Amino acid sequence: MAVPGAGDAVSNKPKRLNIGVVGIGRMGQRHALNILHLVPRANLLCVCSPAKPDLEWADQHLKPYGVQIYETFEQMIETPGLEAVVISSATALHASQTLVCLERGIHVLCEKPITTDLHELATIIKKAESRPETKLMVGFCRRFDENYMHARKKVQAGDIGTPIVLRSQGCELLDKSGFFVQYAKVSGGIFVDTTIHDIDLTLSFFGEDVKPKALWATGIAAMHKELAEFHDADNAVGVVEFWGGKIAYYYHSRTTTHGYDNCTEVIGTAGKLSINLVPKMNRIEISDAHGIRNEAMPSWSDRYEGAFVTELKDFTAAILDGTELPMKLSSAMTSLRIALALQESLVTGKKIEFDENGNKI
Amino acid sequence: MAVPGAGDAVSNKPKRLNIGVVGIGRMGQRHALNILHLVPRANLLCVCSPAKPDLEWADQHLKPYGVQIYETFEQMIETPGLEAVVISSATALHASQTLVCLERGIHVLCEKPITTDLHELATIIKKAESRPETKLMVGFCRRFDENYMHARKKVQAGDIGTPIVLRSQGCELLDKSGFFVQYAKVSGGIFVDTTIHDIDLTLSFFGEDVKPKALWATGIAAMHKELAEFHDADNAVGVVEFWGGKIAYYYHSRTTTHGYDNCTEVIGTAGKLSINLVPKMNRIEISDAHGIRNEAMPSWSDRYEGAFVTELKDFTAAILDGTELPMKLSSAMTSLRIALALQESLVTGKKIEFDENGNKI
Amino acid sequence: MAVPGAGDAVSNKPKRLNIGVVGIGRMGQRHALNILHLVPRANLLCVCSPAKPDLEWADQHLKPYGVQIYETFEQMIETPGLEAVVISSATALHASQTLVCLERGIHVLCEKPITTDLHELATIIKKAESRPETKLMVGFCRRFDENYMHARKKVQAGDIGTPIVLRSQGCELLDKSGFFVQYAKVSGGIFVDTTIHDIDLTLSFFGEDVKPKALWATGIAAMHKELAEFHDADNAVGVVEFWGGKIAYYYHSRTTTHGYDNCTEVIGTAGKLSINLVPKMNRIEISDAHGIRNEAMPSWSDRYEGAFVTELKDFTAAILDGTELPMKLSSAMTSLRIALALQESLVTGKKIEFDENGNKI
Amino acid sequence: MAVPGAGDAVSNKPKRLNIGVVGIGRMGQRHALNILHLVPRANLLCVCSPAKPDLEWADQHLKPYGVQIYETFEQMIETPGLEAVVISSATALHASQTLVCLERGIHVLCEKPITTDLHELATIIKKAESRPETKLMVGFCRRFDENYMHARKKVQAGDIGTPIVLRSQGCELLDKSGFFVQYAKVSGGIFVDTTIHDIDLTLSFFGEDVKPKALWATGIAAMHKELAEFHDADNAVGVVEFWGGKIAYYYHSRTTTHGYDNCTEVIGTAGKLSINLVPKMNRIEISDAHGIRNEAMPSWSDRYEGAFVTELKDFTAAILDGTELPMKLSSAMTSLRIALALQESLVTGKKIEFDENGNKI
Repeated sequence: MAVPGAGDAVSNKPKRLNIGVVGIGRMGQRHALNILHLVPRANLLCVCSPAKPDLEWADQHLKPYGVQIYETFEQMIETPGLEAVVISSATALHASQTLVCLERGIHVLCEKPITTDLHELATIIKKAESRPETKLMVGFCRRFDENYMHARKKVQAGDIGTPIVLRSQGCELLDKSGFFVQYAKVSGGIFVDTTIHDIDLTLSFFGEDVKPKALWATGIAAMHKELAEFHDADNAVGVVEFWGGKIAYYYHSRTTTHGYDNCTEVIGTAGKLSINLVPKMNRIEISDAHGIRNEAMPSWSDRYEGAFVTELKDFTAAILDGTELPMKLSSAMTSLRIALALQESLVTGKKIEFDENGNKI
Repeated sequence: MAVPGAGDAVSNKPKRLNIGVVGIGRMGQRHALNILHLVPRANLLCVCSPAKPDLEWADQHLKPYGVQIYETFEQMIETPGLEAVVISSATALHASQTLVCLERGIHVLCEKPITTDLHELATIIKKAESRPETKLMVGFCRRFDENYMHARKKVQAGDIGTPIVLRSQGCELLDKSGFFVQYAKVSGGIFVDTTIHDIDLTLSFFGEDVKPKALWATGIAAMHKELAEFHDADNAVGVVEFWGGKIAYYYHSRTTTHGYDNCTEVIGTAGKLSINLVPKMNRIEISDAHGIRNEAMPSWSDRYEGAFVTELKDFTAAILDGTELPMKLSSAMTSLRIALALQESLVTGKKIEFDENGNKI
Repeated sequence: MAVPGAGDAVSNKPKRLNIGVVGIGRMGQRHALNILHLVPRANLLCVCSPAKPDLEWADQHLKPYGVQIYETFEQMIETPGLEAVVISSATALHASQTLVCLERGIHVLCEKPITTDLHELATIIKKAESRPETKLMVGFCRRFDENYMHARKKVQAGDIGTPIVLRSQGCELLDKSGFFVQYAKVSGGIFVDTTIHDIDLTLSFFGEDVKPKALWATGIAAMHKELAEFHDADNAVGVVEFWGGKIAYYYHSRTTTHGYDNCTEVIGTAGKLSINLVPKMNRIEISDAHGIRNEAMPSWSDRYEGAFVTELKDFTAAILDGTELPMKLSSAMTSLRIALALQESLVTGKKIEFDENGNKI
Repeated sequence: MAVPGAGDAVSNKPKRLNIGVVGIGRMGQRHALNILHLVPRANLLCVCSPAKPDLEWADQHLKPYGVQIYETFEQMIETPGLEAVVISSATALHASQTLVCLERGIHVLCEKPITTDLHELATIIKKAESRPETKLMVGFCRRFDENYMHARKKVQAGDIGTPIVLRSQGCELLDKSGFFVQYAKVSGGIFVDTTIHDIDLTLSFFGEDVKPKALWATGIAAMHKELAEFHDADNAVGVVEFWGGKIAYYYHSRTTTHGYDNCTEVIGTAGKLSINLVPKMNRIEISDAHGIRNEAMPSWSDRYEGAFVTELKDFTAAILDGTELPMKLSSAMTSLRIALALQESLVTGKKIEFDENGNKI
């Protein structure tokens, strides 16, 4: 007994979500390849980029699979059958492209930050709420890492009692190429650019509806002295107090020598979870004249390689199955609010306070 | 500028290897899904199984993707366009199915053991050598784990000098269901069933051409007392001396309480690599009234999840690109020879010696 | 050839420092036994305590060794030959007893806090400076732990470049007996009582002369709700910015379930040292149905058992050899200043700033 | 109320055991200083050595404390009041000196090996049994390490069920000075010289009365090629099967590059204890361009620094209190028997079997 021919079968092939990728720089390429090869329920329909080298890359890696390649977002968005996009274009374009897609009923997974402007974010959220059938998710990839997911389940199951304190850090390898300093100028600052991930995780552990009460930050430009010019730091610490008696504190560094040292500790009334306390690259220990050592995780893209795939899978599933997205838009608002306030505190040296609704006083 | 239509593009789609999976029990299902969803350069053309539940599973999970489903190997092997198979049928069928495929010029990735009979293995190897254009690989999946691959590179780069001693163990969770004891009866015994993986890894580190000189094994039936009836053990230790001054020693247990505790240490004249010395499940540490702990890796299928995918990718690439397979067939012969001799030593209590060609004296 | 009789030899016996212990409660008993049995260059001459049970303990454990036992400090201080004291009496007595000893030329190792009043500390330091031949050391025992000593050497050798950020925490097991809450009332508060150790360590790594620039603290009474009444916390976080571009941040908890979780990370421009990142009790890993675990260090007295002995040895050596004490009195002043300000910030919620001399603005 | 004068009190001073140290080379000096300064219930009465530099060392470090110093064992043994000796002279003298002491009713703690001759050991044990009031202990120091003691308690409490398999290794840093090769010639061989510690630990975990059933060993001279001349190895593996269904397997290396890598795993039917699986020197982790590392324990004398003190304390207490010694002499016999047989197997390549009483067949 053989099944009917392949041609026939194809017609029963499970529905796949047609996705386009906006911007195929470093992250966009990764998203495109993930959709193409690792997300069974998605189909990479099209991509776009204004950059010649990116288009050449797409010609080589995507075109053979029938992916449609465009030079502009406006052209790509017209592709027949397009159902969803992943926005990984320049940050300045995120908000407007998101709005265009929502307007057209195209689901959006937008790289963070969707915007670093609170008013703009409010506008986007309003638009999204007005079109509940169109889904919008901000790409806080760390939530989709299997370790954070597993930890979240434990917290939700009450394994550590009530979470009361959270510590999170995301230290990165010193970049000596000069690239980072240029990037930093437009990044929104250390808290807005990167600590926002730790803040998002905080909400995932403390509860999406938790509200900040007060915060304070400080930082130094220890190696990238140029950062001082635009009031940013390469090593910074921030503390956030939440209404209801919870505290989160963050550290970020742009200057490690060993690799990407990113860990989170969730401390509850009945135990503690430490995620990636020692950022080992793999399961190999080397014993030699240097002692006993592990190689360190080189960078966030290595650390969260699997998380990017899971993120796409979960986004795809939520659309195809009509289920809830794994995170709320209001959380993105809270996270941005906190990140901006930490950045402000870093610059002004002032403590910042919030009312019970989490609005800055 | 948009690329030409999808239809056009499809015709340029990179060549994919048409693979059939023989046997879709637990491992076969995993292979089938891996080929279907995670190996971009492969196409799951067909599967076969004599077992109703497996066919039903295939109807549900594979048929929608156009995969052809057969009740017999003989039918499946006739599928037009079939280029390669993954054999994960009952062990007793591995050898004959492999021979049929080789005869037809169909490439084979066969789950271990391809056979536990040395003469039969010699016949298979002869056949394979007579058809060098048809590739045959035995599925020693642990070689494809990223940690072992990384460690191998380090050893080959001379990072630990000359490897002289290797320790490897593969302890498994106690099975209280009774399944294991039934399985054990036909498994070939503890060394042939599982330590053969550690032996294969030894060759990968010491050199594929290394020859055994002498060995001795002992074991106990500590929990699965029934094993004693057929002279098998649930905890066993074996030591192998190789010509040229190298030693490997192995421990296997079927009775752990914490999980799958599988590690390898490669000791060289200038350093040591320890792979998975502490078999942590993930990057989460739990601190509570029990102390500070990690959950343990539950089973080999969790530990080597990624390795199964890499194995398929590398097998596929070697065929499509016409490159060397990542392991030699002669290694499978050496490994089986050593495993059988360890098992014999376990039963007889005798030390077993080999001549300089690795033939038992 | 035998050496001359023992009697003769005794007269050449190396000079030992005659020490008295003031207060023989829990810590005083430990100091007394350490001096008696584990500090070769010291002689336990006398002890005193107003508490009957402590005197009974001394009768049993010290008297047999010829130690003189007194009911009052005033009596003990007259003991002929007394050269130095260890003050481990009630905190309220530390300052006055220290002053009496200094006045008499008796060297002092005083348990921390010598006082929690900055003016009183200034008076003591002035007195000490007026009698430079009489040594005064505050018992910041963590400095004498072999790990901290080893780390300090590495930092001083430049192994991690310039230290720029320090993280330190000292989480303690939840006390359910009610004792802690009573103690907390007179402890000076969480930062003054315990974080002062982390502050002292900060100075030891950043440089004794480093000056605070600004700080902020927050805390919650998560389990010991009674603490809120006197504005203390059982979980608190504080951040201190130092002049010259350095940051230290602290976390203390009174509510762990696993044990004494005390670690320090010193982050420099060329590397990081993590001291006791995972607070394992010993070198034993237990693998069982709970996973893979270590027992946790139960309490600070277990963690710093060896440090208390080293502290006494180094204090003794500095006096007998006329060398510098291993820490400066001015550091104790800086530490107290920071600890008091953190506590004030915890209570008031206000950020506190300091001028370039480290004086509160 | 002051206690009576010191003179009076001294007469009530707890009885201390008068100990002499025979041989004050490296280990003898350590024992002497330990007794002098760290074992409160012992008094270092005398030492002896034929070596000029050792006598000079004693003049400087021991004489000031009234310790009597002799050039010969025969003189020292006459010291009035001598109650016990620690024998750390040249190995060749251990047996005869032990017999002389037993004859005189002087308790003995003898460094291992007391002898490497089974007949001589039998003679010594017979003599010891004929004088039960005189205690004799062989210095298997690893038993007194706090980790092994703690693990033993857990095993005895049934925490891991019935112990069935034990793995132990004791790898040492490569000695490039040439000293080791000279020493090896008279050491009795790798199993007799060092693995005997692992064997002793095996008995401590499996039960002192466990009997060997069969064993086999193999080894290589990987770096110290000269060892081959006298049939010794610098890397060796041995497996011992015990009557009653238990297995121990050992690895020893003289050629590590990272330090003293000494660990033991006790595997039971309900769990596993791993002691010192990763031989970290201390609690400091260094993160820098080399990755994340710990310095390794340099040598056995660092690893067992505390164990040597505990050994002396327990030996002293057993004598003063008239209690059982913490290990049986018969264990030393079993350990030596196994070690000699492993060494024989290493040389001959033969498997060695024992009858149910543990006598070689």
